[in-house]
Amino acid sequence: MELSVASGAIAEQSASHGEDALAALNALVSQDLEACNRLIVARMQSPVALIPQIGAHIVAAGGKRLRPLLTLAAAKLGGYREGQRHVALASCIEFIHTATLLHDDVVDESALRRGRASANALFGNQASVLVGDFLFARAFELMVEDGSLEVLGILSGASATIAEGEVLQLITQNDTSSTEEQYLAVIEGKTAALFAASAEVGAIVAGCPPPQQKALRAYGHNLGVAFQLIDDALDYSATQESLGKTVGDDFREGKITLPVLLAFQRGSEEERAFWRRTLEAGEQTEADLPRAIALMQSHGAFADTVKRAQAYGDAALAGLALFPDGAPRRALAGIVEFCISRAR
Amino acid sequence: MELSVASGAIAEQSASHGEDALAALNALVSQDLEACNRLIVARMQSPVALIPQIGAHIVAAGGKRLRPLLTLAAAKLGGYREGQRHVALASCIEFIHTATLLHDDVVDESALRRGRASANALFGNQASVLVGDFLFARAFELMVEDGSLEVLGILSGASATIAEGEVLQLITQNDTSSTEEQYLAVIEGKTAALFAASAEVGAIVAGCPPPQQKALRAYGHNLGVAFQLIDDALDYSATQESLGKTVGDDFREGKITLPVLLAFQRGSEEERAFWRRTLEAGEQTEADLPRAIALMQSHGAFADTVKRAQAYGDAALAGLALFPDGAPRRALAGIVEFCISRAR
Repeated sequence: MELSVASGAIAEQSASHGEDALAALNALVSQDLEACNRLIVARMQSPVALIPQIGAHIVAAGGKRLRPLLTLAAAKLGGYREGQRHVALASCIEFIHTATLLHDDVVDESALRRGRASANALFGNQASVLVGDFLFARAFELMVEDGSLEVLGILSGASATIAEGEVLQLITQNDTSSTEEQYLAVIEGKTAALFAASAEVGAIVAGCPPPQQKALRAYGHNLGVAFQLIDDALDYSATQESLGKTVGDDFREGKITLPVLLAFQRGSEEERAFWRRTLEAGEQTEADLPRAIALMQSHGAFADTVKRAQAYGDAALAGLALFPDGAPRRALAGIVEFCISRAR
Repeated sequence: MELSVASGAIAEQSASHGEDALAALNALVSQDLEACNRLIVARMQSPVALIPQIGAHIVAAGGKRLRPLLTLAAAKLGGYREGQRHVALASCIEFIHTATLLHDDVVDESALRRGRASANALFGNQASVLVGDFLFARAFELMVEDGSLEVLGILSGASATIAEGEVLQLITQNDTSSTEEQYLAVIEGKTAALFAASAEVGAIVAGCPPPQQKALRAYGHNLGVAFQLIDDALDYSATQESLGKTVGDDFREGKITLPVLLAFQRGSEEERAFWRRTLEAGEQTEADLPRAIALMQSHGAFADTVKRAQAYGDAALAGLALFPDGAPRRALAGIVEFCISRAR
């Protein structure tokens, strides 16, 4: 109970609006983030020009840099002052993330990413697969330069877990009999693993004692689950402009996310037949996405997905209770608010 | 000159026939190779069943395990007696190799691999991309367990170089104006980098002094170039049965390999128009592959590709001159003979 009281207090201290919270986090580590962005560009170079070209396409598209921000802020929260290890490792985490984005877009055949044409749409699937491989290898080169076997262990483990989550997602796709448990395993793998590692690596760089490392890892893990839950709700409820990718992608691909699972569980037999036709058989007409959204709304599937995300957000805040109050803790607490507020 | 005399002597000491040489190498490290195969199966496990399923498909297909054999034999040549580090690292090299095979087959849209349906043909491109990512990450987990930053540096560097070579291959594909220099950069990246790393890692595990590490790295590099030159000749000159993959794949994909470059350089204007139509424009009829092969034969393109491979083979043998004569050196010399003899 103490932890939940503490997390309530931490949430109140955090910036109350999502965008403000993201801005506060950016301000806290602005110099580090700039150094990180410079390093990303510098280490993406290769005599093979197509590699930095595709890299630049994704980097220029921006993105929130959430994962490197976590590493930088966690290092600050842990009291890291000297050195640039947090910057180098934040870059390498963004490399890993970018590699998975390139491969995801190939797997999902996505046309849009971060509001622009996706790399696979522009440069082809082949280049996306291979440049993803390059970025992944380059990430490990950066880690070797850093020289910490502990960090190498965390990030190689996270990378394997991400791939497992993605494969599980592929298997459960188009299968309305897949379970909430499987869904949770998918998002823990494909999203939470790298969020957890990002925060943990910051704690390790700062030399935090093991309980604090563990707490920051738990913070990242729970934040990652909350983030993905909201993402999965937004895939049906957002506008294309705000989402930066095509709305309804998950529906078209037959991904079984929590909003689907809830609407399916709570639906009539006729409604379940609708889900089976559209998601399993993949037979979809133009009227089907609006109907899917209406069914989700009528069954409270969005509201309950957000509620679930909030519970994970509270758990993330609880992970911060071990740390003293101050700008870094408030910024990390604020990012929980930011993730949840995207759904409002 | 001394080195080339030495390498001549080493070549004579090696088994005279290719298959015998491979058998001798296998016999030399048979127990280690068995341990390596067991480790590969054990560490491919995952709660996500599709991962070991795809892994088993490739492992069961066999393959010569050339790269792990190099690591195991190089460790033996360097006098490594105690411990199992060479086995663990040989497994992790085979994981990296398998990951690149999975991704290559997606990039090339290959239907056959090692005489069986390729993983992408059986399980789909999506699964091949993601399971490749998993195997790559798992390889790094194995390296972290081994705990050598030096080895991690060599293999992360090799992995980045492989990806660069593959991207360069993609760029120069369908471009008959690409150069021999570019071709060499492609095969040094996509093939020789991992051969070099495989031999070097064996030397490091054995605690060889730096000159010997460098010599074994050079051996692996030159062997890798020779191996790929022969592979590229075989893609036109072998039978499907002996090749284990579809003959003429490179032709259909418009890959600019040395046999093509030589035939193109030496061809008439009419012949160059043929190469441009078939490889650049990709307009091919059934009669074109036989004609391509006939042109290569008439211009001595196969013979000169093999000659080039032999020169790299000699350079590989020269790398062994620093080491004392004995079964390990003979086995590694024999593998050079094996690689070249595939073209006979």
